[in-house]
Amino acid sequence: MKLIPLILMGCGGVGLQLIHHIVSCRSLHANKGVRLRVVGLCDSKSLLVASDVYSMELDDSILLEVCRVKSNGSSLVTLASSVVAGEHQAYSGPEVMRKVIEIASLLGKSKGLTIADCSASSETIGVLNQVVDLGCCIVLANKRPLSSSLEDFDKIYGDPRRIRHESTVGAGLPVISSLNRILSSGDPVNRIIGSLSGTLGYVMSEVEDGKLFSEVVRTAKTLGYTEPDPRDDLSGMDVARKALILARLLGLRINLDSIKIESFYPEDMGPSVMPVNDFMKNGLPLLDKDIEDKIKRASSNGNALRYVCMIEDSRCEVGIRELPKESALGRLRGSDNVLEIYSRCYNQQPLVVQGAGAGNDTTAAGVLADILDMQDLFP
Amino acid sequence: MKLIPLILMGCGGVGLQLIHHIVSCRSLHANKGVRLRVVGLCDSKSLLVASDVYSMELDDSILLEVCRVKSNGSSLVTLASSVVAGEHQAYSGPEVMRKVIEIASLLGKSKGLTIADCSASSETIGVLNQVVDLGCCIVLANKRPLSSSLEDFDKIYGDPRRIRHESTVGAGLPVISSLNRILSSGDPVNRIIGSLSGTLGYVMSEVEDGKLFSEVVRTAKTLGYTEPDPRDDLSGMDVARKALILARLLGLRINLDSIKIESFYPEDMGPSVMPVNDFMKNGLPLLDKDIEDKIKRASSNGNALRYVCMIEDSRCEVGIRELPKESALGRLRGSDNVLEIYSRCYNQQPLVVQGAGAGNDTTAAGVLADILDMQDLFP
Repeated sequence: MKLIPLILMGCGGVGLQLIHHIVSCRSLHANKGVRLRVVGLCDSKSLLVASDVYSMELDDSILLEVCRVKSNGSSLVTLASSVVAGEHQAYSGPEVMRKVIEIASLLGKSKGLTIADCSASSETIGVLNQVVDLGCCIVLANKRPLSSSLEDFDKIYGDPRRIRHESTVGAGLPVISSLNRILSSGDPVNRIIGSLSGTLGYVMSEVEDGKLFSEVVRTAKTLGYTEPDPRDDLSGMDVARKALILARLLGLRINLDSIKIESFYPEDMGPSVMPVNDFMKNGLPLLDKDIEDKIKRASSNGNALRYVCMIEDSRCEVGIRELPKESALGRLRGSDNVLEIYSRCYNQQPLVVQGAGAGNDTTAAGVLADILDMQDLFP
Repeated sequence: MKLIPLILMGCGGVGLQLIHHIVSCRSLHANKGVRLRVVGLCDSKSLLVASDVYSMELDDSILLEVCRVKSNGSSLVTLASSVVAGEHQAYSGPEVMRKVIEIASLLGKSKGLTIADCSASSETIGVLNQVVDLGCCIVLANKRPLSSSLEDFDKIYGDPRRIRHESTVGAGLPVISSLNRILSSGDPVNRIIGSLSGTLGYVMSEVEDGKLFSEVVRTAKTLGYTEPDPRDDLSGMDVARKALILARLLGLRINLDSIKIESFYPEDMGPSVMPVNDFMKNGLPLLDKDIEDKIKRASSNGNALRYVCMIEDSRCEVGIRELPKESALGRLRGSDNVLEIYSRCYNQQPLVVQGAGAGNDTTAAGVLADILDMQDLFP
């Protein structure tokens, strides 16, 4: 049986779903000759770790207890005091990262250790920078580490065999793995265009059906399709981070600020100027006319209006574009993500990957597939 | 530099394109720290092999010479007599497989050895059965080894980490890799439906545009889109082999003869009854009326008519089906392949992979990506 020791960072929706997947896949994975040993778990404040990371792990009962406690909105700390003394230890504050690095030094080179980052924080970048040198494998659902400075990207991506990050773009959709296959076969990618926000995809196709932009955004917020402040989606920043990750895979040496990002709202409606309730009530309706005009213009050109990322040559852009109604992107309905890749092999018609590009279940499934994809690196 | 020793079986269009890809990717792969060492090459009659497989390889000049000779329609044997004495050796007849197995015993466990089967023959199955026990990795573009007996499938698929076969279904399209990711994450696949023949996809979308079936097939033959005898496409056998491979990945313990295969032509127009010219001239037009009726019926139901493989529960079928015009399959135009995968994560809308599913370039690119995907298994 091949053992894969694992530290999980981030106990939000994706992290907890990953724990559930790991536990429910025990027999499936045993049949394939592998076992995931969760030796540590951290949320933003604390770390729960097996007392002896060589021989012990956080067993399934404690993992499910973590899920219960975290789903109730409590911190890992509350659990730490109740755990069986001697079997696990808890750390808080600056101790957390110090302890993760200590485990990485113990297990990284000797046993192999995967660090799975399911947080949405920039605070993990420091520890990721360090564990790569300690022989660890890295799996990311967190976009931040690869969409911050080029220096961090180069460091964390130093050994491409030891990093996977499918769920940073399009959740579990096989976007990164498919792109990497094309690149490794020497097929040069000359254009990528994609709709990588389920929220904005939903908004655009509802507006196309004749609904008012402001109404659609309000409904989306009510249904929980948007972030608590919908401007976090409407700014395009989340799509830009995904675009940056794809662009860097193609070899572009760019940063977030080199990407032309089109926002749905003007600066004077930004979060620092206008409270969210004010934006929802008074700001949004002011945007309806412009979107309506754009939709009409696109339609009269036989096109659909989409919010896309576009990478071509050394250009990387994110914004509202008219696209042929008959293309995969033009035909998109609802919240599915779509990515079109053009290369030597896919020149007339693109390679298209399409499907649900959000949700804790599929995002965590992508992380789990990534972890297993690197199993041959483990002793 | 990680060295990947390789024996290539099959010097048809795909095999030669693979050689071209390997040679043209030398610097790309060197930048990634890998080098593909082609130690042997065989066509259906003979084998060309480096004299000392430990230290020597078939260098790029001899590889390109092989491409030249084979493109002219000659056999590898003609080359064997002209090669520099002492650097390479040539084998023919029963010697070929004996020598391949000898090399596999020398290199398989000690250095790692990949056997890439780019032939379309059942004759490689015997040697593949043997090399798996010798520690070799296997990459297949050839559908036969995985679509013959379950016994052969089990043997060749014995260690799933040591086999890749992306190009057996949909050429280089990331179909197998995407499906395997879903399965390894424990996301149960409950339905697969796909258009996996570029030829039949082209035929169906032309017929949908109002053209006569017999005319479309004749044009497709003239353009080289079909096999020399178009009944090889129209029988559905090629699609059935692909369907069988997908079904077996889902765990179905079935054989080719358990698949319900709908052919475009009746048995009394089969190759053993009717010569190909007779079929093209007199047989084909007799099929027009039936197809036309089916198209009309589908259209009046708001559906499109497609030739698809369908795997659901323990059922695996290949044939003409009505599909919603708004689905990825219904919207398909031209010769692209499309696969729709339904699972727990992709339940409302499927995961869709679409793009060119034929051609030597993309098929060989898929093989090359597969070879590189297993590099971590090599010392």
